[in-house]
Amino acid sequence: MDWQARFGRPPRYAGVSTFAHVPAATSPDGLDVAVFGVPCDSATTYRSGARHAPAAIRAVSGLLREYHPWWRVAPFEALRVGDLGDVPVVPAYVDETLRAVRDWTAGVVEAGAFPMAMGGDHSVTLPLVRAVAARHGTLSLVQFDSHPDTWDTEHGQRHGHGTWVRRAVEEGLIDPAASVQVGIRGSVDAAGDLDEARALGLRLIPMDEAAEIGVAAVVARVRETVRSPVYVTLDIDAADPSCAPGTGTPEVGGFSAREMLALVRGLRGLPIVGFDVVEVCPAFDPGQITALLAANLMYEMLCLLASRG
Amino acid sequence: MDWQARFGRPPRYAGVSTFAHVPAATSPDGLDVAVFGVPCDSATTYRSGARHAPAAIRAVSGLLREYHPWWRVAPFEALRVGDLGDVPVVPAYVDETLRAVRDWTAGVVEAGAFPMAMGGDHSVTLPLVRAVAARHGTLSLVQFDSHPDTWDTEHGQRHGHGTWVRRAVEEGLIDPAASVQVGIRGSVDAAGDLDEARALGLRLIPMDEAAEIGVAAVVARVRETVRSPVYVTLDIDAADPSCAPGTGTPEVGGFSAREMLALVRGLRGLPIVGFDVVEVCPAFDPGQITALLAANLMYEMLCLLASRG
Amino acid sequence: MDWQARFGRPPRYAGVSTFAHVPAATSPDGLDVAVFGVPCDSATTYRSGARHAPAAIRAVSGLLREYHPWWRVAPFEALRVGDLGDVPVVPAYVDETLRAVRDWTAGVVEAGAFPMAMGGDHSVTLPLVRAVAARHGTLSLVQFDSHPDTWDTEHGQRHGHGTWVRRAVEEGLIDPAASVQVGIRGSVDAAGDLDEARALGLRLIPMDEAAEIGVAAVVARVRETVRSPVYVTLDIDAADPSCAPGTGTPEVGGFSAREMLALVRGLRGLPIVGFDVVEVCPAFDPGQITALLAANLMYEMLCLLASRG
Amino acid sequence: MDWQARFGRPPRYAGVSTFAHVPAATSPDGLDVAVFGVPCDSATTYRSGARHAPAAIRAVSGLLREYHPWWRVAPFEALRVGDLGDVPVVPAYVDETLRAVRDWTAGVVEAGAFPMAMGGDHSVTLPLVRAVAARHGTLSLVQFDSHPDTWDTEHGQRHGHGTWVRRAVEEGLIDPAASVQVGIRGSVDAAGDLDEARALGLRLIPMDEAAEIGVAAVVARVRETVRSPVYVTLDIDAADPSCAPGTGTPEVGGFSAREMLALVRGLRGLPIVGFDVVEVCPAFDPGQITALLAANLMYEMLCLLASRG
Amino acid sequence: MDWQARFGRPPRYAGVSTFAHVPAATSPDGLDVAVFGVPCDSATTYRSGARHAPAAIRAVSGLLREYHPWWRVAPFEALRVGDLGDVPVVPAYVDETLRAVRDWTAGVVEAGAFPMAMGGDHSVTLPLVRAVAARHGTLSLVQFDSHPDTWDTEHGQRHGHGTWVRRAVEEGLIDPAASVQVGIRGSVDAAGDLDEARALGLRLIPMDEAAEIGVAAVVARVRETVRSPVYVTLDIDAADPSCAPGTGTPEVGGFSAREMLALVRGLRGLPIVGFDVVEVCPAFDPGQITALLAANLMYEMLCLLASRG
Amino acid sequence: MDWQARFGRPPRYAGVSTFAHVPAATSPDGLDVAVFGVPCDSATTYRSGARHAPAAIRAVSGLLREYHPWWRVAPFEALRVGDLGDVPVVPAYVDETLRAVRDWTAGVVEAGAFPMAMGGDHSVTLPLVRAVAARHGTLSLVQFDSHPDTWDTEHGQRHGHGTWVRRAVEEGLIDPAASVQVGIRGSVDAAGDLDEARALGLRLIPMDEAAEIGVAAVVARVRETVRSPVYVTLDIDAADPSCAPGTGTPEVGGFSAREMLALVRGLRGLPIVGFDVVEVCPAFDPGQITALLAANLMYEMLCLLASRG
Repeated sequence: MDWQARFGRPPRYAGVSTFAHVPAATSPDGLDVAVFGVPCDSATTYRSGARHAPAAIRAVSGLLREYHPWWRVAPFEALRVGDLGDVPVVPAYVDETLRAVRDWTAGVVEAGAFPMAMGGDHSVTLPLVRAVAARHGTLSLVQFDSHPDTWDTEHGQRHGHGTWVRRAVEEGLIDPAASVQVGIRGSVDAAGDLDEARALGLRLIPMDEAAEIGVAAVVARVRETVRSPVYVTLDIDAADPSCAPGTGTPEVGGFSAREMLALVRGLRGLPIVGFDVVEVCPAFDPGQITALLAANLMYEMLCLLASRG
Repeated sequence: MDWQARFGRPPRYAGVSTFAHVPAATSPDGLDVAVFGVPCDSATTYRSGARHAPAAIRAVSGLLREYHPWWRVAPFEALRVGDLGDVPVVPAYVDETLRAVRDWTAGVVEAGAFPMAMGGDHSVTLPLVRAVAARHGTLSLVQFDSHPDTWDTEHGQRHGHGTWVRRAVEEGLIDPAASVQVGIRGSVDAAGDLDEARALGLRLIPMDEAAEIGVAAVVARVRETVRSPVYVTLDIDAADPSCAPGTGTPEVGGFSAREMLALVRGLRGLPIVGFDVVEVCPAFDPGQITALLAANLMYEMLCLLASRG
Repeated sequence: MDWQARFGRPPRYAGVSTFAHVPAATSPDGLDVAVFGVPCDSATTYRSGARHAPAAIRAVSGLLREYHPWWRVAPFEALRVGDLGDVPVVPAYVDETLRAVRDWTAGVVEAGAFPMAMGGDHSVTLPLVRAVAARHGTLSLVQFDSHPDTWDTEHGQRHGHGTWVRRAVEEGLIDPAASVQVGIRGSVDAAGDLDEARALGLRLIPMDEAAEIGVAAVVARVRETVRSPVYVTLDIDAADPSCAPGTGTPEVGGFSAREMLALVRGLRGLPIVGFDVVEVCPAFDPGQITALLAANLMYEMLCLLASRG
Repeated sequence: MDWQARFGRPPRYAGVSTFAHVPAATSPDGLDVAVFGVPCDSATTYRSGARHAPAAIRAVSGLLREYHPWWRVAPFEALRVGDLGDVPVVPAYVDETLRAVRDWTAGVVEAGAFPMAMGGDHSVTLPLVRAVAARHGTLSLVQFDSHPDTWDTEHGQRHGHGTWVRRAVEEGLIDPAASVQVGIRGSVDAAGDLDEARALGLRLIPMDEAAEIGVAAVVARVRETVRSPVYVTLDIDAADPSCAPGTGTPEVGGFSAREMLALVRGLRGLPIVGFDVVEVCPAFDPGQITALLAANLMYEMLCLLASRG
Repeated sequence: MDWQARFGRPPRYAGVSTFAHVPAATSPDGLDVAVFGVPCDSATTYRSGARHAPAAIRAVSGLLREYHPWWRVAPFEALRVGDLGDVPVVPAYVDETLRAVRDWTAGVVEAGAFPMAMGGDHSVTLPLVRAVAARHGTLSLVQFDSHPDTWDTEHGQRHGHGTWVRRAVEEGLIDPAASVQVGIRGSVDAAGDLDEARALGLRLIPMDEAAEIGVAAVVARVRETVRSPVYVTLDIDAADPSCAPGTGTPEVGGFSAREMLALVRGLRGLPIVGFDVVEVCPAFDPGQITALLAANLMYEMLCLLASRG
Repeated sequence: MDWQARFGRPPRYAGVSTFAHVPAATSPDGLDVAVFGVPCDSATTYRSGARHAPAAIRAVSGLLREYHPWWRVAPFEALRVGDLGDVPVVPAYVDETLRAVRDWTAGVVEAGAFPMAMGGDHSVTLPLVRAVAARHGTLSLVQFDSHPDTWDTEHGQRHGHGTWVRRAVEEGLIDPAASVQVGIRGSVDAAGDLDEARALGLRLIPMDEAAEIGVAAVVARVRETVRSPVYVTLDIDAADPSCAPGTGTPEVGGFSAREMLALVRGLRGLPIVGFDVVEVCPAFDPGQITALLAANLMYEMLCLLASRG
């Protein structure tokens, strides 16, 4: 007899750890949403440690419960959500890692499941987008981030956590005219950096502008920019370091947690086909609040998916 | 000769630690306000450690000085405040703990002192309210919190940090129609959870609504709801995790520290008869800012009491 | 198709976390060894947090590999080991918790599996021993610990992390004459405390004596004391705080990690029928070395079991 | 051959650490801006550790890049900036320390370089101002701080981190009528404390008022108050503890990081002749966000200086 | 009625914090042993923070219980021990601090109490010895330390945590021929540094030698060196950083905790007239094991005093 | 005029941070010893963060002073030692990183300087050995480590922190018959793992054996095994986690710090031509004791080099 059925569930902080206590899945077959980790941090340019993010997010995600009063939805009832474990990345070998992530994600989308990934550093979004675009066609990208990630090379190499957007545009995976980057701020390498991002055709909403116009207006601009299908990537450093200290390249002056929640809620109804939260770095998150914010933003996205019926 | 009189006081960070360096009291007799700790955390449902909160709050409370410019009052001159130490709770035995807290608090209110308690997890508010209501009659409850704490049972038991409000209503200790919960947010167990809180008759001001209408309007609603006498309980998780990472069940998207101060100041003039700050969890508060926020909110309440003459 | 079979295993630090990456089990049926957690800390008398120990031990146990050169054994090949998850303890309700642990463990031993538990505070050993003795008869106890845990009451109550040995003797679960406590040290409540332990009939090897005679002689004494069947309980505070800072009631001057390994290895060949490691407290273990020591001592015991064929 | 020229620069997190990877300077000659540390914390009244602030700020300042999109300026191209190392302070000897800081700073301003200092506790601003005023005449002071630092004595002594403003006024170094203190809040020693600050002639903008009128209005008041030349001192405790937990005497309810950035940007065009950031305390800053905020505020000031051509 | 008598004592981790829950004393009159803190760290040459040591030691000292099995003594019954609080040191003013410590200690010894001090950095031992020698005459010094502290000046000044031994010899407070330094190790400023210590007449037992001959032989040498009366100073950095990470100037390769206990026990029967434990630095002691070791060594000394009847 | 000459040196905890305050060097020309960092951690198999090790070691190395009493040598007088900064590694690109380290080290040895490297993970030793062997011929390897690092592949790839020894043997860089691995312990992937290391011809001294025979005998075996020239690599995980918690793949039961010092001292007089200390991981080293041990072991090696005249 199943032991949990016999004895009941342990308290929420306990038990073998999957995301939000959803079932561990050995395959995406039959799932509506496949949650999985991409535990790599080789491509980080400052503080490393994002490889431990999936474990850290799972650890605090036990706080998440069944029903969301704002969305008025019970996502785990409305959707079959499973935790597929972590992609077998290859530390120090970026090409092999990119391939592993793409193949894994391809399997997920082929099975008809929505891919919801926990990075890892931001370099993992490229193979995620490759797999999702192979299935759904050219994507609109909604990127919450403090950095545009549109460099051509990083340390002289093509793949890093700061080059993936350019690669995605070059490969035709995303339609820049239907894509938008929200929360960009901080110093850059050269005068032209942000212009280069714009030259790629991407819409930028820098943090200063976002703060000035307010979250509701930001949401409106995002919604007027994107076209179906939409991929959402959320670098946790879009949030202010007070809310997200545990990240590799923090930038002061970002969104508050309340604003982050409102931004994701603002995507309600959009035809989203993939989602990731990246750059959580537990070694600098002693109070676990960064991982908690990431877990909640994933939960908001699950509610969004559940609410579209 | 008294050693401190002879040599003077040590720097504020030093000396045997009482709350804000008020005198250690061996009895509440003669006190206007009795500060005490309730160092239990057995009933916490996620991260434990709140038993160490009274010590942590005392440790940083040395930063508090004699005069508050906003209130224009010197609370330790206006009031006789003493630190009574900690209630002899019984770890792992919740009934015995509840009884100990009630008896202790009963002694405090019988001596004519205002009880100001430092939890401990939120289960301790039930015996506090039992003792205060026994003295002052049915109470209006003002609860700053991210959770309504209105479950019927928790882990199949009647007493936990999430059931005490229901118990208090059932026992007639608080008048739900004159009570209000401010800052409620986050996921719940089932669709009806918040409705159940409302079904008890309590007024809820969820965080989303509070953020929308602003703190001044929240304060107005609180003031129009309550009737004399008022008990105020402040779960530190009402504040955003950026301001209060050190708590057992953090919920992202809460009040800022500035808003928390404004909320307490907004209670000015209300006939408050008891106060507690609960759920500080020092193990997740490496910068001590959660304990510091708790200490300051206690200080604000002392100023409120002092300002009513 | 199974996802892991298709894509391979992720790096050892990754994946859904079970102890040492053994399979998650939904029942003990068919297992030789059932690893499980008992995530409670209500009964701790000083620093709380042991409820998070099973998660912390699992997190670092990914470092454990397949083969142990000293034992010359591959425990996960030799034995069917599964991670059964955590017992549904009832925080703050000690009687209910003791019952839940006993029932769960009874199910494990009835299924023919060896119970290997991760506490939790030391109060959990009583129900473990209750269940094991119900199956195997009166037990010899080998206890590595800095405290004898032979008080009659704690905070005036019968169950705590310092009373379970007395209860076990009173209930006839263990044969004191065949039982031994190793590593006892530190201050006690009264002159007679250790005498009382001895009066129960238990053999004590205080730390001072252990340090003087050396680990090999300690092992010899243990082996000459015990009779079949043997239950081994290992309070991580037997180790010195330098090796095990993350525990609730640390006592300076304990065993080194090398000595701890040697002590467990010294049990080779004994007819052991149950094992637990308790009192790991992750909140005070920022380098994770306490959890790592616990994980390794569990692994040594698995090798011991595997080596007896 | 120069090794870096031959092999290239290491990643930004690496290399021998100067502020923002500017060249280490052995003298201020030829520099437009001399960055240096004043690593003392003897005068702190609560949590010590600010002596390690210069090292901590340098460590995270590697995140700063070459170009600032808001200012549209590349400060390290526009200005010759060097890191002069740390002043040889004399721990425990305050007079000797004050003298060392003044002499060092005098050398800097005599060489024609702009002094940009990283404290240390706030007592170091007095000798900084002494040296700068000796060169530029009586100064307008812009002080971002939660404390007015206008006590007459501290622990019965004339020099501390809470008395330096009074000393500076007494010595005629600053013109109080052209000076302003922004962000003052928290409890004080006596009813008259803030009045005394005002009695010195200083303009105060308490935090409550600043929050009410908003940052733009605060900036306007600052600009209407000051006269040439201006010295800016920034106590990191002006920021809220959520953004700056790592400081010696934190006060809840301060400016957000976004507001801090806006305040410094609001000084654009003012004739600033010296700047310091003080009171960063790394021991209470496990996520490094306080040091990062300090580094960014220094970077904003560099951009301000660069933008005035 | 006394509240504690009425309700009983709270658990050992709770209550207003004095050393080992001994009574807070307002004067040394009537005490056999006066425990007090000297919370200064201005004179530290590396990591600051020792000012918080008395609070940290008190916080963990609640673990200490009434009876010590090795000594077979109940120190708090045998002796009247009180916690006198902390000396009003003057941060940043070393001369004033030295004077305050001497006057305070003079009052203690004049009252007939044994002074047991918790530093603070090691500069505080000079005024302690001044006061004790004024009462008892020239002292034999037993110093457990990794550094000889016999420099002539530090940062060009006479008082620091590395010069106090030379000052004590110069002032005739200690008889070098009857004094011994145990555990000296690590790099020094110049070839002659240890020779200078020897030239003062002090006996040195460097760590290498101590490790070679063993603790029993070290104890024998100490006992053959000293003459009545004896002052014992214990710099926690005598212990290895694995046992005492939280100290200002750690030196690898020191004594284990077990050896430290044995060293203090080896002083049994000596005519000791004063004792201090210094250089605990809580900011680098996240597991609290350094403070715990210090608390235990104080407890051992109390037992030593109690055992001499 | 040079600023430091004019004002003097700041306290040892201060100043722009090079290793032990040796001069920053822009080239190895003229140096006897070139200290440099190799800040990569991509190849780590468990906890990442070793990229920050050079910065962490430099930060605590300010504690190192000029003269070593045991060696009776002043290494910075006897040798011209410079800190060359960090190798421009390429995160996530292991081949490029290996090439960069080899080229850099080749430049160092060609300039006649002794290379002393601070890792980084252990994969960096391969290119170090490549460069040193190219200059000095086939090397004797002395490896202090808990792991043999003789796998053929890791995650299916040829380069990792667990494969470099096999690569070095295959490439003929080291003579296995003259090489020795000291401290090997812990679980391995398969029964044959250690046999494979031995099959390569390497001598192994497992930890169990080392503990049994003692450090002096270990040293003797090392000395009888090696032939000129010798390369020494020191994985900090050779030390016990109590002494070195901050490392990526800790193994319990290792050498104490005292034993580590003795092991390096035991190499006195050997013809050593290169040295590295690897695998320090600051994120898990909150007390900085791991970095401090590493810094001291580097200092011991400098003394060894200085003592051979």
